[in-house]
Amino acid sequence: MYSDEPTRVRQLVSEFLSGQSGALVGTDGLDVQLSAGADARDDCAVYDIGSPMSLVVGSDYIRGPKFILHEMGLLSDFDIGYYLAAANISDVAAMGATPIGLLSVIRYPHELDDAGFRQVMAGIHQACTDFGTLNVGGDIGNAERLILAGTALGVCPPGKVLRRHGARPGDLLCITGPCGLLGAAVAYFPKRESFAGRLPEAAEQRLLDSWKRPRARVAEGQLLSRKPYATACQDTSDGLKATVEQLMQAGGVGFRVVEQDVPIDPAVRAVAELMNVEPLALAMSASSDFQLAFTVAPDDLAACRESFTASGLDFHVIGEATEKEEAEAVHNGTSRPLPGVAWKHQKSDISLLAASSPDA
Amino acid sequence: MYSDEPTRVRQLVSEFLSGQSGALVGTDGLDVQLSAGADARDDCAVYDIGSPMSLVVGSDYIRGPKFILHEMGLLSDFDIGYYLAAANISDVAAMGATPIGLLSVIRYPHELDDAGFRQVMAGIHQACTDFGTLNVGGDIGNAERLILAGTALGVCPPGKVLRRHGARPGDLLCITGPCGLLGAAVAYFPKRESFAGRLPEAAEQRLLDSWKRPRARVAEGQLLSRKPYATACQDTSDGLKATVEQLMQAGGVGFRVVEQDVPIDPAVRAVAELMNVEPLALAMSASSDFQLAFTVAPDDLAACRESFTASGLDFHVIGEATEKEEAEAVHNGTSRPLPGVAWKHQKSDISLLAASSPDA
Repeated sequence: MYSDEPTRVRQLVSEFLSGQSGALVGTDGLDVQLSAGADARDDCAVYDIGSPMSLVVGSDYIRGPKFILHEMGLLSDFDIGYYLAAANISDVAAMGATPIGLLSVIRYPHELDDAGFRQVMAGIHQACTDFGTLNVGGDIGNAERLILAGTALGVCPPGKVLRRHGARPGDLLCITGPCGLLGAAVAYFPKRESFAGRLPEAAEQRLLDSWKRPRARVAEGQLLSRKPYATACQDTSDGLKATVEQLMQAGGVGFRVVEQDVPIDPAVRAVAELMNVEPLALAMSASSDFQLAFTVAPDDLAACRESFTASGLDFHVIGEATEKEEAEAVHNGTSRPLPGVAWKHQKSDISLLAASSPDA
Repeated sequence: MYSDEPTRVRQLVSEFLSGQSGALVGTDGLDVQLSAGADARDDCAVYDIGSPMSLVVGSDYIRGPKFILHEMGLLSDFDIGYYLAAANISDVAAMGATPIGLLSVIRYPHELDDAGFRQVMAGIHQACTDFGTLNVGGDIGNAERLILAGTALGVCPPGKVLRRHGARPGDLLCITGPCGLLGAAVAYFPKRESFAGRLPEAAEQRLLDSWKRPRARVAEGQLLSRKPYATACQDTSDGLKATVEQLMQAGGVGFRVVEQDVPIDPAVRAVAELMNVEPLALAMSASSDFQLAFTVAPDDLAACRESFTASGLDFHVIGEATEKEEAEAVHNGTSRPLPGVAWKHQKSDISLLAASSPDA
């Protein structure tokens, strides 16, 4: 039997990981409580370590079936190092924590020369610097191909960690910026030839930049956590549709997304039009970008907006949480299931979306 | 240019990681100090997090060019899950810390069915249980081949973390048990046919068991840390020769190893004899087992021994630290460089050792 990943996580993994949240994990006079373990299904595990802060820790591997844009030469070794760090730090940011370090696993093939290896390290270093943290170690060695994984650590005042659960009906659903750029890049570039120069160079550059310098939303997560303004939060690294569905399942609420309020990047719109798919569907589909999706009580919206503005940050209200545990998109009074293809492992879903287009 | 891994770590990595130990890494009123970063080259990074304990964290990838015994069907999916957890927890144990959790990265190929996947998870779970900790999350998904990495976290009373540096001339060099079994297994099994049944079945079983149920020396590490008895400590996952050399470089001392005092497992001796290599050389060569190598001041030896015995644990004194930064083996008054092949990436060194034998 070959289940897909969500099934494996739900059925096979939970057999081993259930019930661990709340456990005392230290011994020997050292009091440590695992307040959110693997069974909590948040972006990170959370420890209360008897100090005036909680510890948040998560691991991400960043290369699945293909890191296609790197193989095509569109992303450099520096870029993928940068992405590795950003992807891991994003998980800490999504919990509202302040990053305190990154561990990196870098396994390289014989073909990667010293210059390339140095570039991977330099990219990791630059991202850590940009997000205010340090690469504190990990594992370096060879393998048949490039393998990159990381672990990010962060700290947060106790009780302030942002979780995926917590949204209440009536809370406003928000995102820190447009989603889908990274997914659009993966949909577009492998088929670039067939579009014969019809995507403007500036749009191509914008797609690539989304991969080259992704931004982990550390400052946004901290703002949302400290008051706290957010009742629930998660990064959009599985795409917006999957993220909304996960917030729904975690919180036992539904979501109504107002279609015209979802920001769509012009480059995503241009790719969608070229591929003859609906722009909103492409914007919500599998895309490993690092916006934060979060919920805010209506009464806190103005203060939250003010805090963001004061820090030069922004977010968009795109809908609200509802009683009934289902996610819908509304437009001119009619509703439908959320458009787009949610991320699942084992399938190149974004290609399915593109393949369903008459153009592809 | 294609440098080997030690060169890359020394020259390319240090460019980015030097000088970080001692840095304050928290912000936002959260006081966190990185007391040992990547530049310290210990088994783990160490944080002081303003609580009555230090945090110890390290990552290990467990499959380099080949996990040959698994590919040969000699190790099960359960076994490699178990090994992954043991390898990571060993790094925490080597610092004297109490493990508080493991994050695992499990990427699997399409060929790994649900039963196999479940076995990997079960092996990780069993090892975490055996070493008194929990698998608190990580990353699961697919890839072209099985990829396993982990991150272990541990806590230790402040100031009690065991480091690789710290040995002083005159300190006794000790190990918790015989080394080299895992390396001997990797040297033997791929060439098994050529030995035509000359290795007893019990020896074969012992070699395999060393891979199937490796023991992270958590209790030993705790004992060595709490007094502290050990002035320096590290696990032997690179093999005993490499470990002694690393303790030497970290501490700026030399080591004199008394050849007849190095315990050699009968199965390692049997493989060495079959392959016509020196048993001590095989015992000290690259082998990813998890004994602890440590140094103890002569005045503390009796008390340390007593503590170990009271806990049903054991260790062997195999030499002493010297003034001059060089490692030598002595036998009947004559000395020579440490025998064996120290572990380096990019080469299958243990095969080089075996290949130099007329039998192979």
